[in-house]
Amino acid sequence: MKLISIIFFVATILIASNECDGLEHGSNYQIFPLRMKSGLGGHYIPDVSCQSWRLGVEAHNVINWKTVPQECETYIGNYMVGDQYRSDSKTVNREGYLYARTLNITNYDIWVFDVDETTLSNLPYYAQHGFGVEPYNETAFNAWVESGVAPPLPETLKLYNKLVSLGVKIVFITGRPQKQRDITAYNLKQAGYYKWEKLITKDTSIYGGKTAVTYKSSERKKLEEEGYRIIGNSGDQWSDILGTNTGLRTYKLPDPVYYIS
Amino acid sequence: MKLISIIFFVATILIASNECDGLEHGSNYQIFPLRMKSGLGGHYIPDVSCQSWRLGVEAHNVINWKTVPQECETYIGNYMVGDQYRSDSKTVNREGYLYARTLNITNYDIWVFDVDETTLSNLPYYAQHGFGVEPYNETAFNAWVESGVAPPLPETLKLYNKLVSLGVKIVFITGRPQKQRDITAYNLKQAGYYKWEKLITKDTSIYGGKTAVTYKSSERKKLEEEGYRIIGNSGDQWSDILGTNTGLRTYKLPDPVYYIS
Repeated sequence: MKLISIIFFVATILIASNECDGLEHGSNYQIFPLRMKSGLGGHYIPDVSCQSWRLGVEAHNVINWKTVPQECETYIGNYMVGDQYRSDSKTVNREGYLYARTLNITNYDIWVFDVDETTLSNLPYYAQHGFGVEPYNETAFNAWVESGVAPPLPETLKLYNKLVSLGVKIVFITGRPQKQRDITAYNLKQAGYYKWEKLITKDTSIYGGKTAVTYKSSERKKLEEEGYRIIGNSGDQWSDILGTNTGLRTYKLPDPVYYIS
Repeated sequence: MKLISIIFFVATILIASNECDGLEHGSNYQIFPLRMKSGLGGHYIPDVSCQSWRLGVEAHNVINWKTVPQECETYIGNYMVGDQYRSDSKTVNREGYLYARTLNITNYDIWVFDVDETTLSNLPYYAQHGFGVEPYNETAFNAWVESGVAPPLPETLKLYNKLVSLGVKIVFITGRPQKQRDITAYNLKQAGYYKWEKLITKDTSIYGGKTAVTYKSSERKKLEEEGYRIIGNSGDQWSDILGTNTGLRTYKLPDPVYYIS
């Protein structure tokens, strides 16, 4: 009898509001009407739909987007500068460490890290540029990169230090072009990433016009051909961890601010 | 000057609390100490770490887990029965529809749906069994399945109806065994999924002991060999959408209650 009541209760919630809303608005992202009460506790849930949008991005359902929906600027800003981004980043990096330490590490074991939003944070830049709501401004972003003052993502820095302690070698593969190699090396060291096996920047004469998936897969393939074993592969974009030669495990760090295919 | 202040402010937040917490607790999932204030707004964030755990699950960072962490039972329960689960489900299904309607649909176009937590909801069952905190109980779960009263996931049902309207054929591939085929067909119809091209249940004489990735990839391969084009593939588990013959696009529906490899 109790089971029947619960079935009825939950079924009512599930079946409720079957109206055809939100599905006919085309390619401009339509934010759903916010419903402010939860079904169970009746407590306030702010920005329920921006949260869904962010989850959709992280789980690779929402793809090929150009900018953060205007309506979500405040939500994403609060997320990035608040505790949740840090907590999410910590959870992912922690999984990486828990996995790495189960392995028997040899001299040929490497961990591949992306740079932007994986090891270095451009949050100071995005905080001034609408947290992803503004279209990408190459000139302004390059000026920020050239300043060389991007702080580390602290939870990634912890993982880095723990991997180095385990004897894992570090390889950075970044979409930054070769002309930004020196400033990137400088910035990484300033941020606490004091050594690495390789820092691979994008050779635009080879990879100009190619996707990040193609470029990064190709560079990882070279590493494996050189005899390295990629035990882990961390990036904030799905294009960092999809493709070929992805490593024994991949780690998708949070990034609701921009999308790279 | 303003930029420098913001850099300092954000860098302070990012670099703060670099202590070595949480990384040494082994394979039992350790919930991080909750920090109750966000950096920006100072507002209360409940259960920050259970939220990170759930995001880790959805983004395929937290894998191979047996049960929901005990500490997260209330959080996951509220999530599942509240608005956020519905909103997350809606966002994913909506992306599916927005993609499908860009295509020129032919007679051979199919959409592959998983069943449990994708088209049918077992929430009434999990509401009575700790929302994933209790270990899987095959006897009790089978009894629930045999009752044939699982409600639809309403946002998936909307996508189903829209796909049928577009002329897309529906194929269900479920890990439910062949002996549950009839009750599953009955339940799907009762729930509103009134027609389909195929309902594929698991032949344990072929796939017994094989992973879901192997089973589902193999069945999708057969479909493509028969001439179908898989335009979309929706599941609540990564094992529904990884592997081979995954379709033109994949859609990961939320499920923080159980994990199938």
